[in-house]
Amino acid sequence: MSTDKQIFARRESEARSYCRSFDTVFTKAVGSEMTDEAGKTYIDFLAGCSSLNYGHNDPDMKQALIDHVSADGIAHGLDMFTAEKAKWLQAYEDIILKPRGMDDYKIMMTGPTGTNAVEAAMKLARKITGRRNIISFTNAFHGMTMGALSLTGNAGKRGGAGGGYLDGVSHLPYDGAFGDDVNTLDYIKAMLNNSSSGIDKPAAFIFEPIQGEGGLNAASKEWIEGVAKLARDHGAMIIVDDIQSGCGRSGTYFAFEGMDIQPDFVTQAKSLSGFGLPFACLLIKGEHDVWKPAEHNGTFRGNTHAFVTGRVALEKFWKDDSFQTEVQEKAVQLTTGLQAVADLVPGAKLKGRGMMQGVDVGSGELAEDICARAFEKGLIIETSGADDEVVKVLVALTVSPENLRRGLDILLEATREATEKHKIAAE
Amino acid sequence: MSTDKQIFARRESEARSYCRSFDTVFTKAVGSEMTDEAGKTYIDFLAGCSSLNYGHNDPDMKQALIDHVSADGIAHGLDMFTAEKAKWLQAYEDIILKPRGMDDYKIMMTGPTGTNAVEAAMKLARKITGRRNIISFTNAFHGMTMGALSLTGNAGKRGGAGGGYLDGVSHLPYDGAFGDDVNTLDYIKAMLNNSSSGIDKPAAFIFEPIQGEGGLNAASKEWIEGVAKLARDHGAMIIVDDIQSGCGRSGTYFAFEGMDIQPDFVTQAKSLSGFGLPFACLLIKGEHDVWKPAEHNGTFRGNTHAFVTGRVALEKFWKDDSFQTEVQEKAVQLTTGLQAVADLVPGAKLKGRGMMQGVDVGSGELAEDICARAFEKGLIIETSGADDEVVKVLVALTVSPENLRRGLDILLEATREATEKHKIAAE
Amino acid sequence: MSTDKQIFARRESEARSYCRSFDTVFTKAVGSEMTDEAGKTYIDFLAGCSSLNYGHNDPDMKQALIDHVSADGIAHGLDMFTAEKAKWLQAYEDIILKPRGMDDYKIMMTGPTGTNAVEAAMKLARKITGRRNIISFTNAFHGMTMGALSLTGNAGKRGGAGGGYLDGVSHLPYDGAFGDDVNTLDYIKAMLNNSSSGIDKPAAFIFEPIQGEGGLNAASKEWIEGVAKLARDHGAMIIVDDIQSGCGRSGTYFAFEGMDIQPDFVTQAKSLSGFGLPFACLLIKGEHDVWKPAEHNGTFRGNTHAFVTGRVALEKFWKDDSFQTEVQEKAVQLTTGLQAVADLVPGAKLKGRGMMQGVDVGSGELAEDICARAFEKGLIIETSGADDEVVKVLVALTVSPENLRRGLDILLEATREATEKHKIAAE
Amino acid sequence: MSTDKQIFARRESEARSYCRSFDTVFTKAVGSEMTDEAGKTYIDFLAGCSSLNYGHNDPDMKQALIDHVSADGIAHGLDMFTAEKAKWLQAYEDIILKPRGMDDYKIMMTGPTGTNAVEAAMKLARKITGRRNIISFTNAFHGMTMGALSLTGNAGKRGGAGGGYLDGVSHLPYDGAFGDDVNTLDYIKAMLNNSSSGIDKPAAFIFEPIQGEGGLNAASKEWIEGVAKLARDHGAMIIVDDIQSGCGRSGTYFAFEGMDIQPDFVTQAKSLSGFGLPFACLLIKGEHDVWKPAEHNGTFRGNTHAFVTGRVALEKFWKDDSFQTEVQEKAVQLTTGLQAVADLVPGAKLKGRGMMQGVDVGSGELAEDICARAFEKGLIIETSGADDEVVKVLVALTVSPENLRRGLDILLEATREATEKHKIAAE
Repeated sequence: MSTDKQIFARRESEARSYCRSFDTVFTKAVGSEMTDEAGKTYIDFLAGCSSLNYGHNDPDMKQALIDHVSADGIAHGLDMFTAEKAKWLQAYEDIILKPRGMDDYKIMMTGPTGTNAVEAAMKLARKITGRRNIISFTNAFHGMTMGALSLTGNAGKRGGAGGGYLDGVSHLPYDGAFGDDVNTLDYIKAMLNNSSSGIDKPAAFIFEPIQGEGGLNAASKEWIEGVAKLARDHGAMIIVDDIQSGCGRSGTYFAFEGMDIQPDFVTQAKSLSGFGLPFACLLIKGEHDVWKPAEHNGTFRGNTHAFVTGRVALEKFWKDDSFQTEVQEKAVQLTTGLQAVADLVPGAKLKGRGMMQGVDVGSGELAEDICARAFEKGLIIETSGADDEVVKVLVALTVSPENLRRGLDILLEATREATEKHKIAAE
Repeated sequence: MSTDKQIFARRESEARSYCRSFDTVFTKAVGSEMTDEAGKTYIDFLAGCSSLNYGHNDPDMKQALIDHVSADGIAHGLDMFTAEKAKWLQAYEDIILKPRGMDDYKIMMTGPTGTNAVEAAMKLARKITGRRNIISFTNAFHGMTMGALSLTGNAGKRGGAGGGYLDGVSHLPYDGAFGDDVNTLDYIKAMLNNSSSGIDKPAAFIFEPIQGEGGLNAASKEWIEGVAKLARDHGAMIIVDDIQSGCGRSGTYFAFEGMDIQPDFVTQAKSLSGFGLPFACLLIKGEHDVWKPAEHNGTFRGNTHAFVTGRVALEKFWKDDSFQTEVQEKAVQLTTGLQAVADLVPGAKLKGRGMMQGVDVGSGELAEDICARAFEKGLIIETSGADDEVVKVLVALTVSPENLRRGLDILLEATREATEKHKIAAE
Repeated sequence: MSTDKQIFARRESEARSYCRSFDTVFTKAVGSEMTDEAGKTYIDFLAGCSSLNYGHNDPDMKQALIDHVSADGIAHGLDMFTAEKAKWLQAYEDIILKPRGMDDYKIMMTGPTGTNAVEAAMKLARKITGRRNIISFTNAFHGMTMGALSLTGNAGKRGGAGGGYLDGVSHLPYDGAFGDDVNTLDYIKAMLNNSSSGIDKPAAFIFEPIQGEGGLNAASKEWIEGVAKLARDHGAMIIVDDIQSGCGRSGTYFAFEGMDIQPDFVTQAKSLSGFGLPFACLLIKGEHDVWKPAEHNGTFRGNTHAFVTGRVALEKFWKDDSFQTEVQEKAVQLTTGLQAVADLVPGAKLKGRGMMQGVDVGSGELAEDICARAFEKGLIIETSGADDEVVKVLVALTVSPENLRRGLDILLEATREATEKHKIAAE
Repeated sequence: MSTDKQIFARRESEARSYCRSFDTVFTKAVGSEMTDEAGKTYIDFLAGCSSLNYGHNDPDMKQALIDHVSADGIAHGLDMFTAEKAKWLQAYEDIILKPRGMDDYKIMMTGPTGTNAVEAAMKLARKITGRRNIISFTNAFHGMTMGALSLTGNAGKRGGAGGGYLDGVSHLPYDGAFGDDVNTLDYIKAMLNNSSSGIDKPAAFIFEPIQGEGGLNAASKEWIEGVAKLARDHGAMIIVDDIQSGCGRSGTYFAFEGMDIQPDFVTQAKSLSGFGLPFACLLIKGEHDVWKPAEHNGTFRGNTHAFVTGRVALEKFWKDDSFQTEVQEKAVQLTTGLQAVADLVPGAKLKGRGMMQGVDVGSGELAEDICARAFEKGLIIETSGADDEVVKVLVALTVSPENLRRGLDILLEATREATEKHKIAAE
């Protein structure tokens, strides 16, 4: 039976977006493959924008979820105690926190969206410091609710606020924002250390270790450590937004591992459930957990289905280093593949790191043409960046070598065609 | 196997709340009953704060969800086209919109939390009107992200913003806010119609037809129609926040049915999935759907599991009037039962309407004592109101007559005991 | 020599205003009379909007100023110590503060405009309380810089901010705002005492004892005392804006004399110099004088010429009760005269008190017609109110009985003509 | 007769400032000399912070003012037409605007303080563009009312707002803010030209050509022209704040003369009256004069006494180039003198340009010690800069060569002593 796509145009708001790039009706998905109504199968290099780091319908999570539902397990329990929450907390403590020396963090179940975790962090940082200003960075994306949107750089997204308040934030240049030759940390320091700069003492610095929507900009270890030190010097909180770069995407569980930094807050969402279910949380350094009960609440905090699948994900992939090692090896493959793509486009540059890489092809038009051609050839892939100029690969970390290769081949071919056409058009 | 509850204290943020009232670990739930690890079964008069209007683990939704997962149906597809989304949209069109003469509404899949739908409405209302001010009402609760929080009345919740901006909102008195003798609509009109009142021309009025967190205040038809007319007169949008009062809770699908009002926006969440899964949407009158693609986006928009269960809910309960009639009959029973409770407490008053009723017992202390005693006797029930002074019943609409009676009996007994003790203490 | 009025149109911004009502070029002024280039003399019932309470060019102040300038006295000394400042301070202490039991007030020399004194009060109230919200009232006018403008009610004036921030203020109804039958104090209390009203705990309440621009609304003793008590109950500062109503205008030096209220701050400007020179100050209850040196500064604080004339004004008019008594007697005359005017206009009402009275003639069009006709007949008089519906008398307190009578006669005649024409037009 | 200075401590707010540096009571002042009660005469290198560019009590202005007052000329006429206003406008047109090719500017009489002119410019720029954001620069000082304060960089001054709104402004680095080697214009461009920088499209750029309070930073012609071009490219207004640097202080009437820039708005105050009287105005490019009548008003707009003296100042000093030439010659002398001072202090640097120069001595403590010693020796001189590290000369432009030399000699000697002591203390 075929779906009449008119229903979408007739009923769904114009705000809808991804469906515009991938104009078919999907019905099934396994691992790194999605299948549409017509039975056509696509390789998925988007992975729910990093929400499906373990691929679609992982068999172990799937079975655990079916078992839970079949047994009339809790689906919604507000934030009451449930056996499934206890198990997830225990697994998170044992598998994530303790081995990383993060035993002093507490976990806040926020509403199950990344933006909600960001808002909770903003509120808490302001509450603790008694300051209002938050330092955010160029090309940052932190969400679409008013607090998170105030941190976001993109003018189009900001315009959606329709004149509502996006203030209380100072926007400073991210690593590399002024080109490779300028160390933006110097600029940031000069502004913060001048008591007459007009930049009010900050409650917090918030940054993505690797900017996703902003164009796969990866900050260096030195820059991140410099910002963290500056935050400490000014009595400001450090908020790491690891929503897109976390859960293994960078090559380690958190994207800031290996850096000399102790975030006060870490936001998590996207792949936290392991299965693509809505789930988010905020890690809070214990000393900062000064919330009063229900001071930040919400109906869907602590999605119990997500506790089930999220626990399986932790146990299956993070009990030892093997998965992490495998991901890092794949990242090398990915770099190689993308370099070949970049070589086709004059001036193109590799962006990002780990399994969060892409190619800046210099123009949004070209990038979109590449993605459109890729889709025709059976590859789901998207752009990012201020002008959509980066072709972005967010394939599942569990992608098979075969699918990774096939996807990269398609991308290469699509790029060849688009570049060719582009070249002819320019002549 | 028994859970060591220490894990919650050790790991979960102090922001946790409901678990403080209901100190046991739940494992299963069916209909209006929840069971804990020890095998004790509780009657659930909270129903996920109105997120479980059809009870826990409804067998038809449960089976549909198991089938979907078993078949590797999409769990997360961003906002791409899926067969399940098409079916939900079609069901919503056929079963909800068309029979209610609301064929001109479009549906925006926002992030799957109520607060996100509210934020989307605020942004769009401001964008459309070019105005910033929004009129909200005393005791309103609209969510905890910065935009929605600015609309919320509760000082404790507002304090959580830590000095962040909660502006661009004028707070005016809800129906009944100054007692039964004062028509607050006169006040509202006088402020709006005086060009020197300092109340800037509003982009929108937002209200809950029945205030949930604010103390089960039900606005009259006359008041709601008056506010709606005033909004029209001032060129302002009408946003109905039907998150808690919708999906049948009031006795009809929307709480504003039967009133002469055409909202520009309606927010929905809580019971929208039917199963307690995170899901929210914003109804937008077609002419106002001026979003650009992705202007308000989010990772978990359009939870596919929720499309599956939500569609079953629509088809099972709303294809004709029988369920609605049944709910309305239960509401009468509920009123009777609560009147008996109120009769035990000097000065107590019934609050709310439909299946969203409670008893204002005059003091938060007493209300909490009642709920605590009820819990000991096997009833899950909570308070609401500015001072937690209202004992609130949000039982599933599908509750069996037997369970409704048993729950009310426990409530009566708990109230008798608490009132007695209170009386002795006061002497 | 006659002035070519083209220079004004060619060079002066469209923001100019009073010159539009009084289209002639003035050259001299004495007492309550102004003379234009053509030698025509007008009775001045506007008195610089209450900046000339002692009339134009009072001979004693004039001589003192000439002596000061002739002797090369300081014209501008920033806020350095000058002999003239010492003398003014001493006179203010002896003549104003001590006799009124206000020995514990300190005086802050703000920039020499009323709006600057208001801004200083706002800043200090917020600084002291650590709260942001300020309660202001309908029809309030407190100035045009961004802080003071946020307190101002008038939509046209607010519109001038062009979308800049006018927030951090809750606007509540002034005494009488909802008609004579409604005690707005009840509403104000209900909003403040409900912790879920959305009205954040205020840093301060600010009000004019008699609203000038807002339409000569005089708050009752009971209302003012009630607001003051409410402020105390909520830990909020009380700011009395006595800029227009002070310096004797109300019948006493301060407009709040005789009321059981101890303001934390009192703003003064307009007639403070006695001579119409720019001068303003903020009275601060001693315990609240927590400014750091230069924390609020400004180039023209403490206009030395104004110290000279202002001291003479204090010594001449306020050393004993005789002037005050005389003013109060004139106010009775004024009431009688205005009642005769009101009797000509169906539905007209007297407004204000003391020498700050007027007639609400029900329409801005009629009020403007009356004032225009009065001007033709040699009387300078203006309107006020949200819709300019009040014909306002702000004659010098020193006006001679003869000039007061003549002015009132002209006003009566102008009202008769305008009302007649209005009546014919309406038929 | 000697003044008891206790009156100041007893009555004047702690906000008072300059009197703390110059602890004596002044009685008379002529030209560049001020005399105290004891008959001691001081050379004035402060000149009312640039409000007395023509010295104290200029004999021609003084006589004109005495004549005006003696003849019962208008002292206060709101913004009605007066003969004196017409004459001032005509003189300003003939002497200032026309010769500088600025015939298309209109003049708005704002409240008679610099901050009021700045607020008017901000409001109008936002109104015209429909944008809220204004670009201001590090170390900027634009005033103390809430709008102007939002533009100001100094943390201490900003702190005075007590948590009120200082938003809607992006603070970017002024010329030289990152040292001589960094061209901050590149940074500013990079932030403005990146649509994802988070810097919202600006309504205006506002800058002082030479920063007074910020430490006598003089922006280069190239930087100012670059900022102006950038403003044009982004559809933003250009506001030049010439309050301290104008009226000849820089060596020309406006500090931006000789630069390829057409400001949309120019703020003027301080020396505009010529005599130290409160007076300010806003120059508005004709096409932008979109104010409605009274949309920004105020009681003391257009100080008539200031029209009298201000006109004399224009006629006396600006009818031809002779005064300007003389000022420029004095500026050369001043540079020479200050270089000698700087040579005494290791690492000291000259700052500023024209008659707005000083020496950065590297530490606020040293600078204050120098000024204190200078005062003992009969020289009034102050510091500026974020840390008060700049000894600032703002002597009257009319200073006699003799007094300029004497003042510089005292400064040299005071610096020698302070540096010596400082050196010893450091050993």
